[in-house]
Amino acid sequence: MLFCKTKLTNFINSTRFFTQPIQQLIYREHGNPAEVLTLSNKELEFDKLEKQQVLVKWLAAPINPADINQVQGVYPIKPNLPAVGGNEGCAQVIKVGSDVAEFKENDLIVPAISGIGTWCSHGIYDSKELFLVEGDVKDFIFLSMLQTNPSTAYRMLKDFVNLSYGDIVVQNGANSSVGHFVIQICRILGVKTVNVVRDRPQIEILKNQLKKSGADEVYTEEEFSTLIRSKKLKAKLALNCVGGKSGMILSRALELGGTMVTYGGMSQNPVNVTTSSLIFSNTKSVGFWMSRWYGMRQNIEERKNMYKELIGWYKNGELTLPKYQRKNLEEYKDAINQSTQSDPSSIKSKQIFTKKGNHHYFD
Amino acid sequence: MLFCKTKLTNFINSTRFFTQPIQQLIYREHGNPAEVLTLSNKELEFDKLEKQQVLVKWLAAPINPADINQVQGVYPIKPNLPAVGGNEGCAQVIKVGSDVAEFKENDLIVPAISGIGTWCSHGIYDSKELFLVEGDVKDFIFLSMLQTNPSTAYRMLKDFVNLSYGDIVVQNGANSSVGHFVIQICRILGVKTVNVVRDRPQIEILKNQLKKSGADEVYTEEEFSTLIRSKKLKAKLALNCVGGKSGMILSRALELGGTMVTYGGMSQNPVNVTTSSLIFSNTKSVGFWMSRWYGMRQNIEERKNMYKELIGWYKNGELTLPKYQRKNLEEYKDAINQSTQSDPSSIKSKQIFTKKGNHHYFD
Repeated sequence: MLFCKTKLTNFINSTRFFTQPIQQLIYREHGNPAEVLTLSNKELEFDKLEKQQVLVKWLAAPINPADINQVQGVYPIKPNLPAVGGNEGCAQVIKVGSDVAEFKENDLIVPAISGIGTWCSHGIYDSKELFLVEGDVKDFIFLSMLQTNPSTAYRMLKDFVNLSYGDIVVQNGANSSVGHFVIQICRILGVKTVNVVRDRPQIEILKNQLKKSGADEVYTEEEFSTLIRSKKLKAKLALNCVGGKSGMILSRALELGGTMVTYGGMSQNPVNVTTSSLIFSNTKSVGFWMSRWYGMRQNIEERKNMYKELIGWYKNGELTLPKYQRKNLEEYKDAINQSTQSDPSSIKSKQIFTKKGNHHYFD
Repeated sequence: MLFCKTKLTNFINSTRFFTQPIQQLIYREHGNPAEVLTLSNKELEFDKLEKQQVLVKWLAAPINPADINQVQGVYPIKPNLPAVGGNEGCAQVIKVGSDVAEFKENDLIVPAISGIGTWCSHGIYDSKELFLVEGDVKDFIFLSMLQTNPSTAYRMLKDFVNLSYGDIVVQNGANSSVGHFVIQICRILGVKTVNVVRDRPQIEILKNQLKKSGADEVYTEEEFSTLIRSKKLKAKLALNCVGGKSGMILSRALELGGTMVTYGGMSQNPVNVTTSSLIFSNTKSVGFWMSRWYGMRQNIEERKNMYKELIGWYKNGELTLPKYQRKNLEEYKDAINQSTQSDPSSIKSKQIFTKKGNHHYFD
């Protein structure tokens, strides 16, 4: 955060060092992202780094709903303005300061914390703000998504209940990027997924896509609501990113002692849970926030383990990428519009800022 | 449960033993309690008990909302029909079977489990269905309420978060019988209570009553809703017996990591919690059911400790009874009507079946 501010002032005023043109997607005030974001061309000092600083080149940076909310000013993490947008991405280390031992040239990194600004071509960060990606996967499109969607799915499946082979997980927003990874990780773990999506004209295409990814059952909210009135589902875990009535029908599907984890609120309605589910079925309703998990020091080692496992599954072909579209930073208006449109009749693609070309850094 | 069935058939058909007239408030089918309950006069065999049986005389038995729901057939604990109503009460032991070592004549007992039927003058139960009240308090009106209202308050304050002096508990339905004990136990523990009630013509009288019991702050739902939009309350624990919007405003008052415990659903709406409270404030929404707690074998010793502490507080004058009315079993229609009317303009009294007279068994 601090860096963004420094960066935006320093390299305008200084000409003492070798500078290189870079691009940044910045916002100077909160508001509608399509209006407040602007693409800024700057000069960045490339040949002088503080002892703890690292110069990186961003290879890819997705647009997540949280990034949109952050620009709007309704997200709890608020970088000082003006700020570079984006919280997630994969970058290549170009140069490190004299005291930096954790990284070396050509390493691939992801942000260690939220709010550092990833929608740019290059940046200089404190080494503490970056996290080394170990292992030899060089697919920076996958790596750029590693920190948020698959990790959120992974933690929600690992940290709340003890899932065993044959257990049932129910989720709404199953066609979201997190939902995509929930289906795939459950398939890997031998856990059955019951998936709920909003109805839409192309519902059968969507259902087939999700089943192809490993979904055991897929229902529209209406179908699921009818189903759950007559059949007790006994899900051990419910994953809710919608809220309102959609969350409530998930809570009805929980077994005795089951847990509902909320990680999003797409409907913009509060999370509803039936009273009898809480009292008589002894269920719990909790929340999950990936940024808080990353912010806890005790999770650093587990973060490495998680990335290792996710990268392993990706390399084995057990995890695939959700549908996405690559966009140059210059195409940011289109990318933002694609990310914020909420037309359920279309099947959305995740938008990723990256130079167009291949997926592999070392190719 | 089994006993109720046995009782209703056996002592009609048998005349081998000495019998004594008893009264039972029974229901033969589920439905509106005012319609399906009838007062039945029976003969009970008093001089013959199975080895594990205990003959008791009920001294007092309250009407709780769960009892009403049980007669209606919408409660998860469903005694076999025909059944004697009521789940709570205090009785005196009259006679024990040859293998009963846990009880002796004149002991005071409460039900060990739900569903044994307490709205009657006498009954014969398996010794496992009864729980000895230790200590020398003989106020059977207080003891008849011990099992549900003060114990529910006690457990919700002890089992979900670690409350320390000066912490804040927020509750709705604060004028309920459980709410009454929450206020008093918090006052004993040095914990601050913020209390929310429905608005009503006599609101100032009610507010003063609650403050006299030890409530720190009392608001109508509308006042609290306004307050919480401008002020962060930082309650560690929220106790919800209403649901809907009333539960949602409690969830807004929770501090980071706080817990909302639902133990009732007076509004008959689902429990609402804001998405941001769950995700960003890392709050939890859980349920509490006193009957489940009692049903867990590992809680038997703790149940004794809890009763000892509650009885001690009552004897010291630190706990007082909620407003109540004594009713003879013959007055059951009036008692049921008083218990089921939901007019918030009146301040309800808890209805207790008991012979009218003094409070003390040995007086």
